[in-house]
Amino acid sequence: MRIGIIGTGTVGRTLAGKLVSLGHEVTIGSRTKDNTAATTWAEQAGPRGHGGTFADAAAFGELIVNATAGTVSLKALQAAGAGALAGKILIDVSNPLVFSPEGEVGLDPVGTDSVGERIQREFPQARVVKALNTMSAPVMVEPGRVPGEHNAFVAGDDPDAKAEVVALLEQFGWPAGSVLDLGDIKGARGMEMLMPFWLRLMGHFGSTDFNYSLRSAG
Amino acid sequence: MRIGIIGTGTVGRTLAGKLVSLGHEVTIGSRTKDNTAATTWAEQAGPRGHGGTFADAAAFGELIVNATAGTVSLKALQAAGAGALAGKILIDVSNPLVFSPEGEVGLDPVGTDSVGERIQREFPQARVVKALNTMSAPVMVEPGRVPGEHNAFVAGDDPDAKAEVVALLEQFGWPAGSVLDLGDIKGARGMEMLMPFWLRLMGHFGSTDFNYSLRSAG
Repeated sequence: MRIGIIGTGTVGRTLAGKLVSLGHEVTIGSRTKDNTAATTWAEQAGPRGHGGTFADAAAFGELIVNATAGTVSLKALQAAGAGALAGKILIDVSNPLVFSPEGEVGLDPVGTDSVGERIQREFPQARVVKALNTMSAPVMVEPGRVPGEHNAFVAGDDPDAKAEVVALLEQFGWPAGSVLDLGDIKGARGMEMLMPFWLRLMGHFGSTDFNYSLRSAG
Repeated sequence: MRIGIIGTGTVGRTLAGKLVSLGHEVTIGSRTKDNTAATTWAEQAGPRGHGGTFADAAAFGELIVNATAGTVSLKALQAAGAGALAGKILIDVSNPLVFSPEGEVGLDPVGTDSVGERIQREFPQARVVKALNTMSAPVMVEPGRVPGEHNAFVAGDDPDAKAEVVALLEQFGWPAGSVLDLGDIKGARGMEMLMPFWLRLMGHFGSTDFNYSLRSAG
């Protein structure tokens, strides 16, 4: 499949590398055409890896991944172009982290809105699925880094789009049944609001190789 | 131990019942002295269970539990009286849920503050420990309702107070090591912000008998 990754940070490059290793063709897009992170990644990725702008990546992909910081995601996707997103699955991996001068980490939006919802409202023809924002980038593409059974989550308004994202996560190594459906795109609120808890757990474990395993009596 | 429970809702009565069954003496406090929930509970609880006002419960307890709705907790604890809280461990179990006219659930405060922090600021001589707000009341006092290993969390500024709360949770049935320390009282933010995620999981499982199990490589 042809996949466009919006954002060249750790999350974008980690997902891009995994997708290329699985046989997909990937264009990783940045704000500017000559972004070093994108061009360096593309050079190392081999013939299936390409670099370009946000618009290049969105036009290239049959499926799009938003891997930008949540606070700038709308701008990045506007630069990518609504036309290039229309009708496509858009996996939103972002968290809208805000760092205060005191070094505290907050979220914006938080509580009554989420980046996932904002993207779906701004691009109503995109099939937005919130996914993978609840863990570190290495764990996203290699769930076996964390021992035992543990979970990923999806939220979105389009059940078929969620099913396709779950199938892609199975390619990443997420066992069938390990990806829990949290309902419509408003479920993105709870997924994004996990971040402060996740940061405290990172402090507790002294590592980012951890994840949530849901236990239920049912 | 003598324990004062502030709040007569499901959480307060469930905790009070468990504490009495463990041999503790409990006064459950409500806004008014003749609150039916408190008096009925006390009648049924036997000689170790008592009802009264917020102030009665706070004066009675060597350890205090805030089991009011997070949006009214400060008022309830002000009625209980700062003097009666000074020097005591105050377990804050609350979540500041806000229900919109559209039936959506939000939190207030959210993101840059929490009920746990507000209580600690308002009552600097209380030894506030955020705990147990991340699960249903039945699971709080009977963790075996959820199969396998799973976790509770504590956050607070006083390490000795947290250790005493962990010991109390062990009496509830939480195995040693299952209660994870999330650091200072600002960790209450992440714990309270779990609620929207928890509500989506309740929808997924169709039950409140579930909980988080943290898996880590470390």
